[in-house]
Amino acid sequence: MAEWKNLDKLSAYARLQALKGRVKLQEALSGEAGAERVAAYRVPMAAGLTYHYAAKQVDGEVLSALAALADEAQLADKFAALYGGEMINTGEKRLVLHHLTRGQLGGAVVADGEDKRAFYVEQQRKAADFARRVHAGEILNEKGEAFTTVVQIGIGGSDLGPRAMYLALENWAKRNNTFRMAARFISNVDPDDAASVLADIDLSRSLFVLVSKSGTTLETLTNESFVKNALRSAGLDPARHMAAVTSATSPLASSSDYLAAFFMDDYIGGRYSSTSCVGGAVLSLAFGPEVFERFLEGAAAADKAAAEPDPLKNAAMLDALIGLYERNVQGYPATAVLPYSQALSRFPAHLQQLDMESNGKSVNRYGEPVSYVTGPVIFGEPGTNGQHSFYQLLHQGTDIVPLQFVGFRASQAGVDVDIQGSTSQQKLCANVAAQIMAFACGKQDANPNKSFAGGRPSSIIIGDQLTPEALGALLSHFENKVMFQGFLWNLNSFDQEGVQLGKVLAKRVLAHETDGALKAFSDELGI
Amino acid sequence: MAEWKNLDKLSAYARLQALKGRVKLQEALSGEAGAERVAAYRVPMAAGLTYHYAAKQVDGEVLSALAALADEAQLADKFAALYGGEMINTGEKRLVLHHLTRGQLGGAVVADGEDKRAFYVEQQRKAADFARRVHAGEILNEKGEAFTTVVQIGIGGSDLGPRAMYLALENWAKRNNTFRMAARFISNVDPDDAASVLADIDLSRSLFVLVSKSGTTLETLTNESFVKNALRSAGLDPARHMAAVTSATSPLASSSDYLAAFFMDDYIGGRYSSTSCVGGAVLSLAFGPEVFERFLEGAAAADKAAAEPDPLKNAAMLDALIGLYERNVQGYPATAVLPYSQALSRFPAHLQQLDMESNGKSVNRYGEPVSYVTGPVIFGEPGTNGQHSFYQLLHQGTDIVPLQFVGFRASQAGVDVDIQGSTSQQKLCANVAAQIMAFACGKQDANPNKSFAGGRPSSIIIGDQLTPEALGALLSHFENKVMFQGFLWNLNSFDQEGVQLGKVLAKRVLAHETDGALKAFSDELGI
Repeated sequence: MAEWKNLDKLSAYARLQALKGRVKLQEALSGEAGAERVAAYRVPMAAGLTYHYAAKQVDGEVLSALAALADEAQLADKFAALYGGEMINTGEKRLVLHHLTRGQLGGAVVADGEDKRAFYVEQQRKAADFARRVHAGEILNEKGEAFTTVVQIGIGGSDLGPRAMYLALENWAKRNNTFRMAARFISNVDPDDAASVLADIDLSRSLFVLVSKSGTTLETLTNESFVKNALRSAGLDPARHMAAVTSATSPLASSSDYLAAFFMDDYIGGRYSSTSCVGGAVLSLAFGPEVFERFLEGAAAADKAAAEPDPLKNAAMLDALIGLYERNVQGYPATAVLPYSQALSRFPAHLQQLDMESNGKSVNRYGEPVSYVTGPVIFGEPGTNGQHSFYQLLHQGTDIVPLQFVGFRASQAGVDVDIQGSTSQQKLCANVAAQIMAFACGKQDANPNKSFAGGRPSSIIIGDQLTPEALGALLSHFENKVMFQGFLWNLNSFDQEGVQLGKVLAKRVLAHETDGALKAFSDELGI
Repeated sequence: MAEWKNLDKLSAYARLQALKGRVKLQEALSGEAGAERVAAYRVPMAAGLTYHYAAKQVDGEVLSALAALADEAQLADKFAALYGGEMINTGEKRLVLHHLTRGQLGGAVVADGEDKRAFYVEQQRKAADFARRVHAGEILNEKGEAFTTVVQIGIGGSDLGPRAMYLALENWAKRNNTFRMAARFISNVDPDDAASVLADIDLSRSLFVLVSKSGTTLETLTNESFVKNALRSAGLDPARHMAAVTSATSPLASSSDYLAAFFMDDYIGGRYSSTSCVGGAVLSLAFGPEVFERFLEGAAAADKAAAEPDPLKNAAMLDALIGLYERNVQGYPATAVLPYSQALSRFPAHLQQLDMESNGKSVNRYGEPVSYVTGPVIFGEPGTNGQHSFYQLLHQGTDIVPLQFVGFRASQAGVDVDIQGSTSQQKLCANVAAQIMAFACGKQDANPNKSFAGGRPSSIIIGDQLTPEALGALLSHFENKVMFQGFLWNLNSFDQEGVQLGKVLAKRVLAHETDGALKAFSDELGI
């Protein structure tokens, strides 16, 4: 039985705190010993990815303390409890089953009278069949024409993850002839969001996927009405242009307003739903179900790797532990996610939700205040764009920000140009290698303006190419990393009560049931 | 004469430090006094915008200390020195003249033997004429067809600002019949960036604007070659499809490879160049020169407002001072930028560069290390999207993150839908009003999971609609805010030496002149 204790009640944590400031990267990475460290400080991941942590501020002593912490915190047992179907989401009293959308790590999990893995597989099969029928021209618009665009209507996890995954594979799919339909996304309640997407597409040939677990998310229902109005104004029948992803018990589940409905349930949080039919419907329509299947295989392989109890062989667990050392021992308040891949342009925004919504909490899983810091601020932009922007602060600012790089040896589109003796892809990769060393080792200069203190830690995940499998593995890596950190901090990483108060107050504003400062601000905003 | 002193040498700073934790927002904003505070704590800005700081942790005492600090740090004098043409960029020994691209705040500034205001006006006139000739069909492609798309090739400030401004006005322009050409942007050296933009457009009807001040930016020249290859492969003549924005002395300036060349100079940093022809060429082509002119008018009006010496009447100065109080007295390490406007979706990315590249520094303008923290981490996403993502941490995380909201009473497209008694625009505005109060005042609940501590400060800039004038004023507000903070921290906010080391090392990697850890990482990345 797993024992849930606060981080500061673990003896390994005290040991770890004594190791603050221990490793100087400038020394650790210098000379031939530096090259040996790069060779040694790595963990193979799923789908051909490798996690490199040579530029993190760890050594044998820190790693040994982190391994002791993993053991004392029972990380592997807790993950096993989670995928085995224990009620891990203590706040909402729910199981946490997103791993089952892509594989079966332990025994069967039965809930609500059904085998949950079978349930998720069945929903994915339904979404795959639907996509195949659309692609085969069995589902057509009023004029008998094929659909060319799919538009996802959803917000939060129904938007950020699927959108990031779509952008991540769009060029790969075009290159590999599996691109079937363009995808667009409507999320914000700002009417300009929906208006601008609708102005850009051929409504008559667009299929909309409405995603709302409860069937009551106000932003999403509002945007649905917005879209339905537009369809009707164009003389089109909304029921011939819409599918729904919702829970089996929601009002949307059996409505004749939709061509089809695919089900999710309460055991999959929005930010963990990219591998459920929340991602599955839109991605199968965009790229074909086979590509989505490959994406799930990559995620399943990474989940399997995360079940390994030895943190030195488990990239997700090690990444979580090093992050905890940086946050709670070294005292760094933020982390930057920096994929050297334009296809991952919205991956940092997805990780921002995944991490900050899961672990941005001040009470433990029993509702007791914790006396240590928890989840950091997460931000990032892709590749060399960031270098010409906020890297100045990362290199020479007064705070140290740990960095999470991602890089691939080959591009997706395979089109390139040779300038000054190297291709663009080589320049891209040379830049990320150079940045790792510049951050870690710095450089002294007679001009203090041009001096770099170094000592800025980073890790990098390297792969051959951003394929569907690699993307699935990358997604799952970070999900599991965040989960392990939640275990370490003794948080419930699977609720999000912090989003509720704003909703309640917004309703009060719209009902004109306010006074004092809230009424004054509302008046200023013209409501 | 302005005297440049470190922050911790100012007596007002010591006074300010004694005021840590003074204001409890839960009390300050309660009851009728809260409404009065909202009415009082505001500063009118240019273009009909208003800066509201009632939900900041300030009171009469803190504001008085901040005013004393503004005075002692000679903020108004330093701004006057800057726009008057003093050499403010001490590191690179350059004037700082971006304000002259949109107005004349002081006397004439003569440099390099010319009146600089006249020079910038002339470049903008050239870009405007070029755009008019393209729109009028006087400049056509090889087949005599009109150009329909403009593609900016640039990185950093040549990309982030202009891209954010384009997205900010795209829907406004469509609604107001000033939309002339669609704009796209190629920035990343990742070949998939250029490949995916080129796959999406009609090359034969696209005009490319190459932006590189030196004419030597490797990423940009590489992407130019990428584009030229694609044009030639399509049987098109690159010289009939390209214009350049560069310095008068660059190799691009008088090349026959371009239809036209518009000039910038060393006195305008990339991140401050949106109002120069770096933004002017692409935005004039996209929306017409008249819209760009209106954008400049908004920026000029905000500059004028920033020259006011009394911080209680100067929104940019007050915003800077309160930010300094939050960073150096309250100890908050990051700031979130949260525009409740989908059109401002990339505005946070622009501010991230503007702020972090300007003030992410550890040495003062004389190259001496400073002993206080400087620029914070900046991040953000638009409107209600963030609510369903990282707001969890902002509300209930262990660190406090100050918030910068932006909101408009009216949408841009003017298309809306009434659901449950309110429009989408009303829901959007209700949400931001509700969030301000939820963050500031929180809410106690018997369930600690549902408790909100409050005490999380925010400000909001409110306007009627995001017009070209409002956008210009918003851009300039933040430029001037960052400038004032640089004055307070005694930094040179106008160089970026922190980006150099990575470039040097990347060249070494490409030349295979590395050993040790750098070679090992390069090998891993397949270079």
